Amino acid sequence: MPEPSETPDSTASEPSTEPNRPDSDAFTVTPYAVDGEIDYEKLLERFGADPLTDEQINRFPDHPLLRRRTFYAGRDVDDYLEAAAVGDPHAIVTGRGPSGAMHLGHVLPLYLAKRFQRATGATVYVPLSDDEKFLAKDQSFDSIGEHTRENLRDVLAVGFDPERTRIVVDTADADVVYPIAVRLAKHLTPATVEAVYGDQDTVGLQFYPAVQATHLLLPQLVAGRQPTLVPIAVDQDPHVRVCRDVAAKEALPVDKPGALLGRFLPGLEGPGKMSSSGGAPSIELTDDPESVAETIRTHAYTGSRATLAEHREKGGDPTVDVPFQYLRFFFEPDDEELERIAADYRAGDLLSGELKELAIERISDFLADHQRRRAELGSLETELEPYRLTDRERRRALERAGVPTGLEG
Amino acid sequence: MPEPSETPDSTASEPSTEPNRPDSDAFTVTPYAVDGEIDYEKLLERFGADPLTDEQINRFPDHPLLRRRTFYAGRDVDDYLEAAAVGDPHAIVTGRGPSGAMHLGHVLPLYLAKRFQRATGATVYVPLSDDEKFLAKDQSFDSIGEHTRENLRDVLAVGFDPERTRIVVDTADADVVYPIAVRLAKHLTPATVEAVYGDQDTVGLQFYPAVQATHLLLPQLVAGRQPTLVPIAVDQDPHVRVCRDVAAKEALPVDKPGALLGRFLPGLEGPGKMSSSGGAPSIELTDDPESVAETIRTHAYTGSRATLAEHREKGGDPTVDVPFQYLRFFFEPDDEELERIAADYRAGDLLSGELKELAIERISDFLADHQRRRAELGSLETELEPYRLTDRERRRALERAGVPTGLEG
Repeated sequence: MPEPSETPDSTASEPSTEPNRPDSDAFTVTPYAVDGEIDYEKLLERFGADPLTDEQINRFPDHPLLRRRTFYAGRDVDDYLEAAAVGDPHAIVTGRGPSGAMHLGHVLPLYLAKRFQRATGATVYVPLSDDEKFLAKDQSFDSIGEHTRENLRDVLAVGFDPERTRIVVDTADADVVYPIAVRLAKHLTPATVEAVYGDQDTVGLQFYPAVQATHLLLPQLVAGRQPTLVPIAVDQDPHVRVCRDVAAKEALPVDKPGALLGRFLPGLEGPGKMSSSGGAPSIELTDDPESVAETIRTHAYTGSRATLAEHREKGGDPTVDVPFQYLRFFFEPDDEELERIAADYRAGDLLSGELKELAIERISDFLADHQRRRAELGSLETELEPYRLTDRERRRALERAGVPTGLEG
Repeated sequence: MPEPSETPDSTASEPSTEPNRPDSDAFTVTPYAVDGEIDYEKLLERFGADPLTDEQINRFPDHPLLRRRTFYAGRDVDDYLEAAAVGDPHAIVTGRGPSGAMHLGHVLPLYLAKRFQRATGATVYVPLSDDEKFLAKDQSFDSIGEHTRENLRDVLAVGFDPERTRIVVDTADADVVYPIAVRLAKHLTPATVEAVYGDQDTVGLQFYPAVQATHLLLPQLVAGRQPTLVPIAVDQDPHVRVCRDVAAKEALPVDKPGALLGRFLPGLEGPGKMSSSGGAPSIELTDDPESVAETIRTHAYTGSRATLAEHREKGGDPTVDVPFQYLRFFFEPDDEELERIAADYRAGDLLSGELKELAIERISDFLADHQRRRAELGSLETELEPYRLTDRERRRALERAGVPTGLEG
């Protein structure tokens, strides 16, 4: 499930199931700030992206995140779908900013990518932007490094196919990331970056969009031109647009990367609350079932009525109920079952506490599987090795980017 | 001999032997623009650097570039001299921007560094900023890469001691350069960079000062705290000042690097002419004696009179005579001999053509030696190997910079 950006001033908003909200210009969405009420349709207009059609949804591997339109829009989605349909190379890039422990919401896009990989053989790239997190956060590089190693174990626990997956860490793979970023930065002007990202506090963050563009082009630079889809929360779309502009301008042997744009994961405490990075309660990937239960029972925002009697009489509202939304996003794949749960809740037959227990059970089962695979991992270095870029792949990427590949001569 | 920055709008000015020039605010000196008449004393005031004292000059290994005050000022020079005197570790950083073939003026600071290395065991770091040149110049990375390889052969031909010398190429050594630059960029604000460098065209050049700061701190990050001296043309002083500020702010285990500040090499065609990068004639390191002779005979600006009779009667002016200045900077180490040449020229006994022939002979001899050593080099990769950072040195540098050094865990 897409996460909102993790800067301290970002907020998570709940996804809306109502088709039309009142228009408003009082919201701001950039990769570093999400404020106000989000109008998801209006965002598409503003960004110039297209809503997904039913036909497009049906051509994707079946998954609740798409079927229920948490991912609701995109760019150049058809090229990706066509390549996936005929078995041509196609890639997914889904990154992680390692500034803390991974939460439930952080890992769901990775499981979506794994689904795509299993269904159509998609290549998956997972870049970890430890450079950007070091620059943007009030943390030492030691701290970011520690989070990076822990996050890597979670990425590995997802169970990607190492033959078709590459995990890249900006500092550890700087030999390939930095020269390509310089190549892409040649025509990336301060004005462009400022228009998209606003003012930055450091020259490192001014440069970072070139690194991000490198992430998105890397599958094509390593393995040749192919449709690349980037599943991201809609607030991250500017990253993709900058990369698309750069790719078009630089005459590199790549296509513009496409995007799969998603709504935000609701904060556990519901609409208008701070996201997890603000210190709000959240479910971490290492939580045991008791912690999950405790967290959801204590903190989850519900759509129930003020009293049990009123709930039984008037029913609850699943559209704002966070435990229900967890089921809807990811944890109840069966549409009929989900609709039955929603109907029971609306009718007042299903109580909020019962709905919470259902979500607790599903999430705990999911986490138990994830944690089992994580516990089975050996040393990070050994486990990561088959997922790292090979020397040959590094050389190919630098060659395709037109960057010097060595000092022979 | 220090070179002016190589951007198309830079100009080379001749060194002045007159102690006082009229004050003027009509000149601009930054690493990317040198315009107008240079007042070297005023520059020191503006930059807050100190003129070298006679005592300091005497403590340096004897060399015409210092003795005759082409290098005329500095920062924290005493710390360096003290370490050199007692045999403590001390380092020189002298870089090269590989945007073209190296000219005579580019290689002279390297020979000065070699002299220091032989005399006091100085460690010498030679960073090649192929990233910056790619970003700043209208050249492909292939072209910059070609120049880099050719320039490396010239650096190798100088004959540094590989035990005490490290040659770093930003893209080829990005594994160590980029993470440290990110570390240094954390508190390097756009305002600081803009105040020192002016507006930049790309986000790559906005970031580059962090890379340059990395160059200047690298000897200490690799091998521990030690006085580091950076011999540069005075227009490059802002690089050093930015690095000094960063070093002080980041609480790294390093001292602020010191600077040895130099006047500009005169353009061959004399005062007010464009530097070599503007397409003006210049002496390349690969020139044979005939080319050197042809270039100097045809293009060198002289201090002679309009006619032979007038020259014999009134004498020439060695202070603006470029062949004489070449001898003064570097190619006539004997002070008495140089003074004799100057006196003969002033008296009209030495003709401009004769002075040219003297410079041609000295420069040709110097180039013949350089070219012989260059021709004896084997493959670049093999020759460069002993000068590259070892894996252990890379790891130490990242550790001292507080940057993650690996993905073990």
